[in-house]
This record gives sequence, structure tokens and C-alpha cells, in this order.
Amino acid sequence: MKFVIATRNSHKATELKRILEELDLDCELFTVADFPGAPEVEETESTFEGNALLKARALAKFTGLAAIADDSGLCVDALDGNPGVLSARWSGATENVDQANLELVLEQVKDVAPENRGAEFVCAAVAVFPDGQELIAIGEMLGHLLDAPTGENGFGYDPIFVPQGFEISTAQMSATEKDAISHRGKALNDLAIQISEVISQF
Amino acid sequence: MKFVIATRNSHKATELKRILEELDLDCELFTVADFPGAPEVEETESTFEGNALLKARALAKFTGLAAIADDSGLCVDALDGNPGVLSARWSGATENVDQANLELVLEQVKDVAPENRGAEFVCAAVAVFPDGQELIAIGEMLGHLLDAPTGENGFGYDPIFVPQGFEISTAQMSATEKDAISHRGKALNDLAIQISEVISQF
Repeated sequence: MKFVIATRNSHKATELKRILEELDLDCELFTVADFPGAPEVEETESTFEGNALLKARALAKFTGLAAIADDSGLCVDALDGNPGVLSARWSGATENVDQANLELVLEQVKDVAPENRGAEFVCAAVAVFPDGQELIAIGEMLGHLLDAPTGENGFGYDPIFVPQGFEISTAQMSATEKDAISHRGKALNDLAIQISEVISQF
Repeated sequence: MKFVIATRNSHKATELKRILEELDLDCELFTVADFPGAPEVEETESTFEGNALLKARALAKFTGLAAIADDSGLCVDALDGNPGVLSARWSGATENVDQANLELVLEQVKDVAPENRGAEFVCAAVAVFPDGQELIAIGEMLGHLLDAPTGENGFGYDPIFVPQGFEISTAQMSATEKDAISHRGKALNDLAIQISEVISQF
């Protein structure tokens, strides 16, 4: 079975491939980088699954292959669930974007009491098949926000997020540790199981 | 929408493309010749749709694209529906196969009274999507057998078959005339309509 993943990030493709192989699925994975001319999709929806579906549908149409996409973000309780789907462009910065976004969130929650600094990472992972069948999986990672960035790994808001049950930020974890508990890891695992159910009948 | 057709015959691909375009479907068609290494499939089923599905499933798996295949043959009343799915290899000949097959059928029905020389061409056209969804369309062309080959066009058993309502063999018709009434034309039209219903929701 061939899939194309709506990412240029080979780490994500490798991670998904590993999960699919663990499920004993014989899959060949491509990324959008393998298809020159694939359309850039604007993320205009108000939900993670909406944006992920936009990306997967466009790529399935362009390639004729089953397409996988994800969309994720940080939802902060004290910010009414924001930045949410706007996580990647929260600050509006065009340089050092991750840093600017994270600093803006810290600024916005600086007066919030420790017990109200709850937040969660959310990921929607979707698969769209060329006949229009769509699979949707949601993964969440609960936790709270730090006062200042800590740790060098990961990306995005990782340096200010501590998962429930841990005392280190996700930027202090190895990729493997983080994948095991992360919103994206959970969503991709769930999606892979759904995919295996669909294509095992084939 | 991209499809791959389980044929190396560019005439079939062109014909199907014309039908899909008439339905206002924006489709890009490939043939198995565009995919070096695509598996050869043995037609081991006892029905036309069974064999067409074998071919389409194998090609959908190999390419990751939606695949279209057909299988067809001549069913002679006096031969209990044979040669049927065995039409292409009825005589067992390896050279001048069409001629040998046709001569064997003529020999087998030579004592059959004119009123019992009914026969039909049957075609199963199928589409298989990468998630396993399958569409099946059957087309038939009723008629009767001649005593001797007549006409130079077409292929297979065309020179000994006269469609109902006509007084010439399908080998005396132009490709366009034949497509308009043929089992394959009907099956592909029906399949194209089913495909349009599936992908118009996408």
C-alpha cells in the first residue's frame, strides 16, 4: 500500500513508517517532497481535523494516492484554548517564529496563577483515500506551562510545556520519549490502527 | 483524479478517457505500461468480474492508485455458455490464436440449427480503489453466430458474431459503431457513471 504524507519533514514520515510497520502493514511512504508541483494549502479551518483534511484531500487529488496529514497545536486553558489552530502563526513573526510565538504565550499567561496554567497539545491525524473515504484520529497530551523556556530538544512550544506526570519539559525529552506520550504519537498510532482495519480487508 | 487501467492497449485507455470526459470528470489515465514491474495476473476465476477484480486489485496494490480492469468473452448458448472466461485461450493455440479459437467454436456449433445459434458477448468492467472499495459493471451484447468468418475489423470472435437487430458482423463495423452497442462500451459507460458518483463527493 502506498501513502503520501503531507509533510516535507522526513522525521514525521520515518516515525509514521515505524508505527505502520509495527502493525505489520506493508506500506510504502512518500512525502509531498516526492511530488513536485503539489499544491500549497492554506489552513483556513477552525479545527485541527479540518485543516488536516484540507491538506490530505488536496494531496490525494494531486497524487491519486491515499494521503495522510496532521495538524496540531497548543491549547492553553487561560487563553480560552488559544493559540490552538493558530499555534504556528500566533505572534505573526516571520523570523525566529517558534521563539516569538512561545514568548507571546508566556507574556499572555504571566499573571496566571500556577494552578491555572493548564494546557494541552492536540493533534489531528487524518487519512484521505482517492475515493473520498476519510479516517480521523485525535491525540492529546495534557500538561501545564512553565514560566520560562527549558530544554533544547523538540520544537514549537516544547520548551514551555510539562506533560502531566512529568517534571521536565517536552524539550528536555528525547524524540523517542516524547513520541511515546505525545499528542502526535497517539494520533498517528490511532490512525495507523484505523488504516490497518481498512486495508487489511483489501 | 488519477486512474491506472489494467491494459497495455492504448485504444481501451483512450476510449475510457472519452467516456469519463463526457461525464465531465477530470481524470488522468495511466495504463499498466506506465508502471514497469507491475505484476502479470493469472485469470483463475470462473467469472468475468472475478478475473477483472483480480487484475484491478493487483494493480491498485502495486501502484497505490485507483485501478480499472475489464474481462470479457463470448458465451455461446449451444456450448452451455462456453467459451466464456476461457474465450481467449479456448483452442489452446499459441499462434494465430484468434483464428484458432474462432475456428474451434465454428466446428463445435456446425450441426446446431440456425435458431439455436444464439450467443452473447459479456464484459465486466471494474474499478478498485486503494482502500478496497470495488465498483462492478456488466455489459452484454446479444446476437447469433455465423457459419463462417465475415469482416476484417475488430478482433477475437468479431468475425462470426452478428448483434441482435443487425445483419452484419461486429467485424464489419467501424470501432465507433461497435463501441456504441458493444458489451465493453456498455460496461465502461456504466462503470464511469458509478465512478462519477463516488468521486463527485470528494
